[in-house]
Amino acid sequence: MSAITFLDYVGVTLFAVTGALSASRKQMDIIGFLFLATVTGVGGGTARDLILDVPVFWVEQHLYILVCAGAAVVTFFAAHLVESRYKWLLWLDAIALAAYGVFGAYKGLAITGSPFVAVVMGMITGTLGGILRDLLANEPSVLMRKEIYITAAMAGAVCYILAIAIGLPVIVASGVGFVVALCIRGGSLMFGWNLPPYKSRPGRPPPGRPTAV
Amino acid sequence: MSAITFLDYVGVTLFAVTGALSASRKQMDIIGFLFLATVTGVGGGTARDLILDVPVFWVEQHLYILVCAGAAVVTFFAAHLVESRYKWLLWLDAIALAAYGVFGAYKGLAITGSPFVAVVMGMITGTLGGILRDLLANEPSVLMRKEIYITAAMAGAVCYILAIAIGLPVIVASGVGFVVALCIRGGSLMFGWNLPPYKSRPGRPPPGRPTAV
Amino acid sequence: MSAITFLDYVGVTLFAVTGALSASRKQMDIIGFLFLATVTGVGGGTARDLILDVPVFWVEQHLYILVCAGAAVVTFFAAHLVESRYKWLLWLDAIALAAYGVFGAYKGLAITGSPFVAVVMGMITGTLGGILRDLLANEPSVLMRKEIYITAAMAGAVCYILAIAIGLPVIVASGVGFVVALCIRGGSLMFGWNLPPYKSRPGRPPPGRPTAV
Repeated sequence: MSAITFLDYVGVTLFAVTGALSASRKQMDIIGFLFLATVTGVGGGTARDLILDVPVFWVEQHLYILVCAGAAVVTFFAAHLVESRYKWLLWLDAIALAAYGVFGAYKGLAITGSPFVAVVMGMITGTLGGILRDLLANEPSVLMRKEIYITAAMAGAVCYILAIAIGLPVIVASGVGFVVALCIRGGSLMFGWNLPPYKSRPGRPPPGRPTAV
Repeated sequence: MSAITFLDYVGVTLFAVTGALSASRKQMDIIGFLFLATVTGVGGGTARDLILDVPVFWVEQHLYILVCAGAAVVTFFAAHLVESRYKWLLWLDAIALAAYGVFGAYKGLAITGSPFVAVVMGMITGTLGGILRDLLANEPSVLMRKEIYITAAMAGAVCYILAIAIGLPVIVASGVGFVVALCIRGGSLMFGWNLPPYKSRPGRPPPGRPTAV
Repeated sequence: MSAITFLDYVGVTLFAVTGALSASRKQMDIIGFLFLATVTGVGGGTARDLILDVPVFWVEQHLYILVCAGAAVVTFFAAHLVESRYKWLLWLDAIALAAYGVFGAYKGLAITGSPFVAVVMGMITGTLGGILRDLLANEPSVLMRKEIYITAAMAGAVCYILAIAIGLPVIVASGVGFVVALCIRGGSLMFGWNLPPYKSRPGRPPPGRPTAV
């Protein structure tokens, strides 16, 4: 298995686990686990393949569906063993985001040849699974949290593209992109890193609530 | 009209009616009825056809759009005649789920030849319309209710596939799948059937709220 | 640049600005602006192209992504200059809805030849960006507001189709569709125009809450 295929399976599997963890937080039944794990696991890649107009990956290769189902079943029986399921959800989501964002950029670049499309594909692939998960499970969206999220997927995709542009082999470039994305997202989770949020009327904060509008 | 085409139209029409009923609960105008009926009626099948990479069914055959529009108009003028619109919504949704889930499995199997993909297609086709309806109408998602929902679509799809596998003709297999799905979903609505939900720390319920996390 | 291409860019650009304004209301960071502007700007057209089974427009022509990114950056630095950002959001959304709804009808008609599909494409193209924006930014959906919304996109699409049917050139027909849609939506915003909402039991309001169910 090549390094890039490995990132693909890491992304699908860990996103599926986060979907199952979300199902556990909502006390769904085993089929709810299967559904949410599958949608979260394959959602981003499905949108990617539809937009790139290539066959949807899990229709071609059924193993992905089985991987999602396995992740759901294991999580159903093992989730009570971990202490804070939401913390696990956030960290597994971070690894999946890094892995799958780079794989999305790889596939977008391989098929269209355009770095712009590749970066957008990395962003969609890395973040859409989590967005769908939160939407379907009726959780506050990970998008609305103050920590860096989309930025990490974007940075990983951009680093992958740059590394390819300067002639590095795919295995090195994908490693660089993965590490950058994971460090940014992980650092944000650990240390609360964030980018400056939009502030209306900079320099002239209104009396009551300085940054609110 | 073959039995399987009949299931297709039953699914689209009844999903469209549930969309219109949802619009009535939100006191939308007639165009809101048309929109929500159409999205609910054709949403699941559209995702199915995009993923299977076949022409989207209602772009090929306009009758589906007219059926959705008709369902919206009839519901706009007739919905006040029924006593509990939400109860009707749930039951029509149950029939549509059973019919459309089996049709999704049929189409998925016919095009890919893979039973795994067919079952996933049945689940998506049977449930996505209702998920979109609840999302757009800002109703609590039918997914989050305790009764069996996705499981019914899945069971219908699996029974259809098994019946085909043992050599039954499509008309019998689709009847079996439809009846199984409808009995499961209907029984769940009538008797409150559900699968055991996920419980954290089985056997050791914490003092306060036994099953919550 | 032809008139119809001009409507396309107007729609994408203004939708992108409304996405960025929505990001400003949620105090997201610059990457959040980029993401929400891009999804709002290209969301409706992406669904249109997937359903019509033609290459997704922004994968073919990268300029659209750059336009969305530019709109996000400009809005990030300029949004504090406007007095009521939500009012701007609604009005720019109105112009984008009119422009993009007509362009959707044009493309739907050009590719399928069917006026039914063209009208549905106009509705999807004109409204989906705003629906996604509100869903992702967790704002109350523009769909649920009492003013006319989907109706304006539909009216613009229908007028475009009728104008083409009586033999007017594309430039005139698209102008007619755009003006009709904008007048309907704009009048609705200014004067609170709306269509009669659904009322249960017309003529026999129950004692307590006359129109609620």
